[in-house]
Amino acid sequence: MKDYIIKDEWNIIEEGFDPHLNKISESIFSLGNGRMGQRANFEETYSGETLSGNYIAGVYYPDKTRVGWWKNGYPEYFAKVLNAANWIGIEVKIEDEILDLATSKVTDFKRILNMQEGYLERIFTAELPSGNKIKVNAIRFCSIVDDEVGVINYSITPLNFDGKIEFTSYIDGDVKNQDSNYDEKFWDFVNNEITNNEAYLTLRTKKTEFEVCTASFIQLLADEKAIDFNSEAIRKEKFVGQKIGINAVQNQEISLIKIAANLTSQNHQKSDLLNHTKIIIAKASTKGFHQLKLEQKQAWASKWQESDIIIEGDIAAQQAIRFNIFQLFQTYTGKDDRLNIGPKGFTGEKYGGSTYWDTEAYCVPFYLATAPQQVSKNLLIYRYKQLDKAIENAQKLGFDNGAALFPMVTMNGEECHNEWEITFEEIHRNGAIAYAIHNYIRYTGDENYLNDYGLEVLIGISRFWKQRVNWSKAQNKFVMLGVTGPNEYENNINNNWYTNILATWCMKYTIKAAQIVEKNRPSQYKNLIEKLNFNKQEFSDWASIIDNMYYPEDADKGIFLQQDGYLDKEQILVKDLPKSERPINQKWSWDRILRSCFIKQADVLQGIYFFEEDYDLATIKRNFDFYEARTVHESSLSPCVHSILAAKLNDEAKAYQFYLRTARLDLDDYNNDTEDGLHITSMAGTWMSIVEGFAGMRVRDNQLHFNPFLPKHWQSFSFKINFRGANLNIKIDGKSFQIAANDDKDLEIFIHGQKHQFKGSGIIELQNKELV
Amino acid sequence: MKDYIIKDEWNIIEEGFDPHLNKISESIFSLGNGRMGQRANFEETYSGETLSGNYIAGVYYPDKTRVGWWKNGYPEYFAKVLNAANWIGIEVKIEDEILDLATSKVTDFKRILNMQEGYLERIFTAELPSGNKIKVNAIRFCSIVDDEVGVINYSITPLNFDGKIEFTSYIDGDVKNQDSNYDEKFWDFVNNEITNNEAYLTLRTKKTEFEVCTASFIQLLADEKAIDFNSEAIRKEKFVGQKIGINAVQNQEISLIKIAANLTSQNHQKSDLLNHTKIIIAKASTKGFHQLKLEQKQAWASKWQESDIIIEGDIAAQQAIRFNIFQLFQTYTGKDDRLNIGPKGFTGEKYGGSTYWDTEAYCVPFYLATAPQQVSKNLLIYRYKQLDKAIENAQKLGFDNGAALFPMVTMNGEECHNEWEITFEEIHRNGAIAYAIHNYIRYTGDENYLNDYGLEVLIGISRFWKQRVNWSKAQNKFVMLGVTGPNEYENNINNNWYTNILATWCMKYTIKAAQIVEKNRPSQYKNLIEKLNFNKQEFSDWASIIDNMYYPEDADKGIFLQQDGYLDKEQILVKDLPKSERPINQKWSWDRILRSCFIKQADVLQGIYFFEEDYDLATIKRNFDFYEARTVHESSLSPCVHSILAAKLNDEAKAYQFYLRTARLDLDDYNNDTEDGLHITSMAGTWMSIVEGFAGMRVRDNQLHFNPFLPKHWQSFSFKINFRGANLNIKIDGKSFQIAANDDKDLEIFIHGQKHQFKGSGIIELQNKELV
Repeated sequence: MKDYIIKDEWNIIEEGFDPHLNKISESIFSLGNGRMGQRANFEETYSGETLSGNYIAGVYYPDKTRVGWWKNGYPEYFAKVLNAANWIGIEVKIEDEILDLATSKVTDFKRILNMQEGYLERIFTAELPSGNKIKVNAIRFCSIVDDEVGVINYSITPLNFDGKIEFTSYIDGDVKNQDSNYDEKFWDFVNNEITNNEAYLTLRTKKTEFEVCTASFIQLLADEKAIDFNSEAIRKEKFVGQKIGINAVQNQEISLIKIAANLTSQNHQKSDLLNHTKIIIAKASTKGFHQLKLEQKQAWASKWQESDIIIEGDIAAQQAIRFNIFQLFQTYTGKDDRLNIGPKGFTGEKYGGSTYWDTEAYCVPFYLATAPQQVSKNLLIYRYKQLDKAIENAQKLGFDNGAALFPMVTMNGEECHNEWEITFEEIHRNGAIAYAIHNYIRYTGDENYLNDYGLEVLIGISRFWKQRVNWSKAQNKFVMLGVTGPNEYENNINNNWYTNILATWCMKYTIKAAQIVEKNRPSQYKNLIEKLNFNKQEFSDWASIIDNMYYPEDADKGIFLQQDGYLDKEQILVKDLPKSERPINQKWSWDRILRSCFIKQADVLQGIYFFEEDYDLATIKRNFDFYEARTVHESSLSPCVHSILAAKLNDEAKAYQFYLRTARLDLDDYNNDTEDGLHITSMAGTWMSIVEGFAGMRVRDNQLHFNPFLPKHWQSFSFKINFRGANLNIKIDGKSFQIAANDDKDLEIFIHGQKHQFKGSGIIELQNKELV
Repeated sequence: MKDYIIKDEWNIIEEGFDPHLNKISESIFSLGNGRMGQRANFEETYSGETLSGNYIAGVYYPDKTRVGWWKNGYPEYFAKVLNAANWIGIEVKIEDEILDLATSKVTDFKRILNMQEGYLERIFTAELPSGNKIKVNAIRFCSIVDDEVGVINYSITPLNFDGKIEFTSYIDGDVKNQDSNYDEKFWDFVNNEITNNEAYLTLRTKKTEFEVCTASFIQLLADEKAIDFNSEAIRKEKFVGQKIGINAVQNQEISLIKIAANLTSQNHQKSDLLNHTKIIIAKASTKGFHQLKLEQKQAWASKWQESDIIIEGDIAAQQAIRFNIFQLFQTYTGKDDRLNIGPKGFTGEKYGGSTYWDTEAYCVPFYLATAPQQVSKNLLIYRYKQLDKAIENAQKLGFDNGAALFPMVTMNGEECHNEWEITFEEIHRNGAIAYAIHNYIRYTGDENYLNDYGLEVLIGISRFWKQRVNWSKAQNKFVMLGVTGPNEYENNINNNWYTNILATWCMKYTIKAAQIVEKNRPSQYKNLIEKLNFNKQEFSDWASIIDNMYYPEDADKGIFLQQDGYLDKEQILVKDLPKSERPINQKWSWDRILRSCFIKQADVLQGIYFFEEDYDLATIKRNFDFYEARTVHESSLSPCVHSILAAKLNDEAKAYQFYLRTARLDLDDYNNDTEDGLHITSMAGTWMSIVEGFAGMRVRDNQLHFNPFLPKHWQSFSFKINFRGANLNIKIDGKSFQIAANDDKDLEIFIHGQKHQFKGSGIIELQNKELV
């Protein structure tokens, strides 16, 4: 754990330059706009430790799978979002001496991520080996208004000399992925073009043949006034640049403005790509730096208007939750239903930028509440569009009749992962995808989603479950063998309670969904049934499984059993595990982890969280007490579910304690892995801890419920949500629940189980938390 | 399956040259002498498909592990016997035209592996593109008398011309392994030396720094008379050669004799290696080709004297069993307790030449009966010498107090394998190593083995089992979780019956062994107990586990259960599995295999085979009938155990049928994989099918038992065994059991349960098979 980020409500601030922290800061200060993103690498040359990262959403490379021992069914490749052309590069020479923070004496270094306005700023004074001293101020952002555009304003002021400053602004496409399986480069050159102030470089990905045109327009300013310049063009293999020299005088600020663009063949015709890039560059340069920055500020203001959380009395918490919200919106904006949310977003290479079940289980609830409905709908449509691939994937594993198994890890719908115990067996992901459909409709009321998209996906998923269970003569029940649950510290287990319960829920929900569509859109229903070659017998097959499924439980303890035989394990509690042996995933061999009772992340409890209405509080408490005591939370996705359940059980201290485990996970580099990138999807979990945990927000029967409490350490917290057209601002302090809507419509809300009527806004005195 | 090998009692014969079969024949016609070995590559240049292979026992390279997803505890490298310098190379030019069977017209091609005398012969006529025709006769062997020596006699007769023949005899060390994980070469150059008729090349392996000096001495003969020659030395990177030209006349036979040596730093001081090689070359060249070949013939005759099996009435079976015996003795001679038996011997790269539990479970019984006692003793001592590494290996996985886990795959005692479900969980191998000690003592009566070696190994193994089980409150028994049994089509299962039974057997046997040593050698026992820091409490801990171990079984069916929950699987029989879906390991995805009831190889039945005396015939039959029907035998190690049990159950047809599945596995290329190398360890299984199956040989209470039957298709079979000093030749025909010993000592033997006395030899009329 580290603690070098300065606490501030709206800004992430680093003061002083410590090269050892640089890769961590490169992750933390990352920028993105849903379409592209980058690590906070320096514009100027840096010979110290750095992980260069520029990423373009949806542009991926199928890297040949590396495997020790091949198993039938393994995918041939792992699709990964690849490191793209570096467009921020500005080599700086002062009197022929290269500016490099690794070789300069750096003072007054400050790095600021301004989350309110959406930009990154870096200020420092550098004394070069020659003794020449300069002050640098660099501002950078990825526009969320023009999401193909990135902007830099890089200013240098000579502090103790008059002399020549030389900028080489460049775009470097000769990059590679650190995680390349076979140390290959993934880009081929297509074309380039350089004028006095514009540069274009088009590259094509190998195999996938995506084309990306990266461009830049540069301006030179002296004391904020534009000046003419003659640049020298520099062309190398997959590299374009322009060199400009200027003679500066002491205390004169020389600025290079670089307005860049990244356009891809996903969104433009290849033949038209260069021309289109020229148009975008022309438009953006016409707006100019100040206008672009103003628009960025306004756009972020409107995002915050819909999504901000204000925490009074805890500045560290305030900073952290805004950081999480900010990074989530930098990663995914919901404009494009071909894109999704990689566990590291645009902040690193790990996990290949691919889609996991994190999206459905953790991110969908966040976007449902904080963004327009279309945003989460697009996350759902992403899977709908990949249904054919999910059916193919299931076929490869021996399923038929349109059974769909969505992949564990994917870019384009094809499975990328290759550990048999995950790839083939961690099939509960299929259920999370169905659950997200339910969650979306529950929150938005948009039942029509079923007609056009949802039902087809649900039928594919239920067909899979139907074939994946088998009748056990021994149990006289249906069983599901050979699975891995969310707790990946168990592999190839039988009858994972969570997976079993999720599977039958999927079938029940599919039957219900079919009835809804049949009723609302009979002819559309008929067409779908025909298209899918659906046989009514399938409903009865599902019903029979629903009625006769086996769910492991222990009657004595009154708990659901994580899987068959779980109680045969030596039952040790996490509190009795020596600190020196944790985290067990670093200290223990894999087999020891597997045969221990220790749980990586919510498993039975994930099921109880999903289906809490099916269980009484006493049951929830027994299971929570049993499993929480055995859970090591070695996934960043674990604590939030525990926090929400603890809050539900009125255990406020525990709820807060779990919330703390991920709230500042990256800002404080808890797990010593922030340098690899940020834990983007787990950030949504922190949001859930506050809104679903502390505020106890639920949607039941089309109505909002709250069951709030105020963490002891806070004075108040408030958050904004979108709910069925209303924009609500909800504030909870020690005594009251306050609500303010964006209009004066009637509102009916349940607080601690009591119905309350509001018109626009209102305030309710809080008594005790409801225990329902 | 193929059928191109010509049936012959003592020879393996291929007639006609088919390049498509070449890699298969290279495996089948492999040569070895326990110290070195090689595939049957051609001496002359060959531009067609070939897998070059020259191997030197015990000289290995730690190739960096390749893995998709790293798990804690995985080994860093896979030690593999590496492809060594090619010493057979003889480039042949006829009138400046290179002889290459891929570009010549080849007629009268014949390849013969003479198993009786232990050499490989190749005869062919080649018409070169120029029209020049030659006859070639090449004889080659690896001496089992001087096991550092290999010999070639390569003769050419011009058939239709007078002209120049040029030989370049060479040693080429610039070789690599096809299975290199990172496409690296493993050898560094040390030194070389070339004289007119001698050439020396010393290489050093990277990392492990073994040095190997490969040398050759050449002679030139015309019509079998030695002639003088002047050779031209050829030196390249890791390559030495000598070029000799001679003008031959039509029908004159020109022969190049090449006597080669391979000496390693395992057996000689590095500083002395070259000198020592010169001595060996001098000795061998003094003997000369004919003497060396004669000695080879005599040495093989004496091996056959101890081990031959004669089958009358089935030439294919006769050829096959001799082939299996021959290849086993080519692979392992038992002279060196640092060597072992790789599943492919010296015939290919697959499995890295490393040691598996195949040695203990399948090869030890073969060598016990067919070779001097020291041979199998050395196989046991191999493990004893690696005990420290086994203890380290267990420590890495979290065990302590001297617990030993022998590796799944190893060269020097360190684990090489890296699939968690095998490496960490297929721990029954530990039991097979203990069982081999028992088996050795049961067969030889050499209880003293326990004093010096056995008990220490047994204590390490029992300490492992003690820590590997845990008390299940739920079962009120000890359980063993997270294992993989011999049936690798199940992973990470709980309470594998075979492993559980083997574990408690190990503890029982260790207690008994300790009592024996304490009684026979009290002071040695005391020293050992002190050295191992052994506490008497450990005996009672073991006893408690022995008394309270859980063994899964199904009372209704009267069978032992392969593992917990096995009966929850869909119970389909192999006979009902469509042919198009077999072998399932090629047709099904891994998860489907795992959740099916299908069994790769004997598992419960392996346990029943090991401990048959503990079960009555009805129990054996119930288990056999149940499991055999579910076994797909997709391991070459599976059929022999089934054959032996079927024989025991008097099901002669089935016993024969299982025997057939591996008898000609490689000769007929059943699985289309002979080109990768031969299934050396499974060859011992075929021997077991005949001797333990058809002849029903057992050792009980220090006495030999037979329970023979004659397969319907045979007229008789006879085999030779060593048993406690006696050399016995046993013959079984349709009516009688005949025995002939090498001396006239009294012999007491049980046949069909009846005691019989012999003096030297005897004959017993056979009635019905005993069912006991």
